[in-house]
Amino acid sequence: MGSELNKKKAAIIAIGDEILIGQIPDTNSNWLAIEFHAMGIDLLKVVVVGDDIGEILSTIKSLEKEVRLIVLTGGLGPTRDDRTKEAIADYLGYPLEFNQSVFDWIAEHKEKQGSRPNDLHKKQAILPRNMKFFRNTKGTAPGMLGEKNGTLIVSVPGVPYEMKSLMKEQIFPYLFDKIDLKVIRTKTLLTIGLPESEIAERLTEFENQLPKGLSLAYLPGHTRIRLRLTAASNDGDAAEKLLQDYVQKMYSVLGLTIFGEGDDTLEEVVGKILRQKGLTISTAESCTGGFISHLITSVSGSSDYYRGSVIAYDNSVKVAELNVPEEVLESDGAVSERTVRYMLSGICAKMSTDLGIAISGIAGPGGGSKEKPVGTVWVAVGYSDVQVVKRLNLNLDRKLNIEKSGLLALNMLRLFLLSN
Amino acid sequence: MGSELNKKKAAIIAIGDEILIGQIPDTNSNWLAIEFHAMGIDLLKVVVVGDDIGEILSTIKSLEKEVRLIVLTGGLGPTRDDRTKEAIADYLGYPLEFNQSVFDWIAEHKEKQGSRPNDLHKKQAILPRNMKFFRNTKGTAPGMLGEKNGTLIVSVPGVPYEMKSLMKEQIFPYLFDKIDLKVIRTKTLLTIGLPESEIAERLTEFENQLPKGLSLAYLPGHTRIRLRLTAASNDGDAAEKLLQDYVQKMYSVLGLTIFGEGDDTLEEVVGKILRQKGLTISTAESCTGGFISHLITSVSGSSDYYRGSVIAYDNSVKVAELNVPEEVLESDGAVSERTVRYMLSGICAKMSTDLGIAISGIAGPGGGSKEKPVGTVWVAVGYSDVQVVKRLNLNLDRKLNIEKSGLLALNMLRLFLLSN
Repeated sequence: MGSELNKKKAAIIAIGDEILIGQIPDTNSNWLAIEFHAMGIDLLKVVVVGDDIGEILSTIKSLEKEVRLIVLTGGLGPTRDDRTKEAIADYLGYPLEFNQSVFDWIAEHKEKQGSRPNDLHKKQAILPRNMKFFRNTKGTAPGMLGEKNGTLIVSVPGVPYEMKSLMKEQIFPYLFDKIDLKVIRTKTLLTIGLPESEIAERLTEFENQLPKGLSLAYLPGHTRIRLRLTAASNDGDAAEKLLQDYVQKMYSVLGLTIFGEGDDTLEEVVGKILRQKGLTISTAESCTGGFISHLITSVSGSSDYYRGSVIAYDNSVKVAELNVPEEVLESDGAVSERTVRYMLSGICAKMSTDLGIAISGIAGPGGGSKEKPVGTVWVAVGYSDVQVVKRLNLNLDRKLNIEKSGLLALNMLRLFLLSN
Repeated sequence: MGSELNKKKAAIIAIGDEILIGQIPDTNSNWLAIEFHAMGIDLLKVVVVGDDIGEILSTIKSLEKEVRLIVLTGGLGPTRDDRTKEAIADYLGYPLEFNQSVFDWIAEHKEKQGSRPNDLHKKQAILPRNMKFFRNTKGTAPGMLGEKNGTLIVSVPGVPYEMKSLMKEQIFPYLFDKIDLKVIRTKTLLTIGLPESEIAERLTEFENQLPKGLSLAYLPGHTRIRLRLTAASNDGDAAEKLLQDYVQKMYSVLGLTIFGEGDDTLEEVVGKILRQKGLTISTAESCTGGFISHLITSVSGSSDYYRGSVIAYDNSVKVAELNVPEEVLESDGAVSERTVRYMLSGICAKMSTDLGIAISGIAGPGGGSKEKPVGTVWVAVGYSDVQVVKRLNLNLDRKLNIEKSGLLALNMLRLFLLSN
């Protein structure tokens, strides 16, 4: 392997007896792998070892000639079990010594939490001399960086949110020039309503025309599919522009199938539209048993547009509370277009809301028939007098039939709001 | 390291380019680590490498002198990317050849799925000679086992449920004598209502008296804490008896704090009690917005005891639908003992159910006050005329305030049913 290749090669050493006995999973390596990949760093190997100086040291030595960057996670606690800094001091040939400025960070951090540093924290400030230290704003163990024979050694705590914050906010930016990273810009578009195969088909031409430096990843879920577009360039502005151009193209191909970006949730997006339009909503649920109402109210501030619901699991509740005529239940059944239409008008009237969602179906595993198999769900959304009605034919287990029909119903409301 | 020590030492090599680019996390190693630990196997190292013969081979060679068992996961697909079997053939010095009996397994598997084996499956039956093969009932790549210089080499597919099924049903039993494993029996008890520290305090004496071969692990969650008791012995009956004795002791210490075992859910347990007693239930929810109703109806067959709910998010719904007097809302507020008492009577009357759960609180982040901070939740459970009421003081984010108060309310109903 030539030095050109090595330049962007990296390895991870995840340290902790608790990982090897299965007490906690090593989730850090997957997070780092994703970040590395996006930045053009080639991850060669991940090694998980226990809190053992000899093992840590021999693992570093076995990797040093192959990679430019070794990230060690974990083993930085103040207890005697944690040995990472001793191994690093040994490897780099630096003595361990008390570091006053790191101790001051720790003291400040503890004071913010309303407590004081103790003897264990003093021990935590005993660190290899000559390293570069990065302040940990979320905990007491600092990030550290050293270099030997051209290989960068980075050490971060094993607590995931401390590790992520240190890497993202301090260490990656610091490493940027050292390993000639590319500037990466990513945007994740969230879709609902089309299966992955259908999205892939619609995006065939788009994908064929993707220029170098742009890549598209499908991150499928049961109901929502995330599409992550990544632009890599030597220049931040160029990466940003490339990304924006192709995000626009995806919007023009997929249109309203895209309901949001990044960490948006469907319930937040629907809530925003309701708030903008000044409309209120209620739900009448049978098969989803309160799941849609739970989704809507999981959004902070939803009381501005959400009034309440009737969960009409039993048919008698559909009649008494939602004014579904008994003869409709008898002739068409509870899982039928006419029933959900009545449920919708009923709930809008009862809760005095502009809009409603009504849903009735067979979640399974029991209750299916040849005409209405498990997974048959009728949904009505809209105003009391202007309704959109749809029959869903799902083919999942009970849990997923509930989740998917609830999300699709909420999405029907979104589409209704955007076109009415 | 002496040979005695090595006898039960193991390593895992997880193989796959997709792991190193972060596309999928390596969840297999954590599962194997837990199983190894329970069986008394000492996991020395986990190494993740790409689909590269050289890397796989050099990793096996670096581990062979240190461990008795190497488990390789992944890299067994039929595409040219997957190189594990070539590396193993190279290491063991066996040629690759078409294996008719493995191909017959694959053909049978495909026929069961209603399709036929194709050329890729023929390639998948080209395997190192002289290995022991284990039939994969869930996929097409078989498990394999070979031995060299006293080190056992096991290869299993990377698809988690195929890997688990092969290891659990076939490979661990086969390895049993070879590495002198212990028989393991485990039981997981599920608790709710006490924090981990309180459970640990109550179990102090129990833990101090645990005999050799028995261990207790805490698996904490936000609301429910799982306690896993593991018995290890050379003899299955002895392990079973030891386990049962100490499970009984835990029940006598923790009593009704234990709501179930293994994969039980609280909503199933409550459903079973309701069904046994022939009682029906409904819910009146404010802050949980339908979450309790969603929990109850996530249980298959819940229509036998669950009628329906009113989600009374808006105060006007509490008045109109649940007959909460306006003067109570004005004097005590919506989050108050009197309000939830009225909500409970109201929902039982409206839905004609024996029992009800009523809940009203401040999920946050807005809406808190000095007297009633975010996380204040009033719950009433019971009959219309016999009620248990409780104020919860949670201190979590919106999502967890909803989840935790919903689960605790359901648990209050469980305790009510068991004592009334």
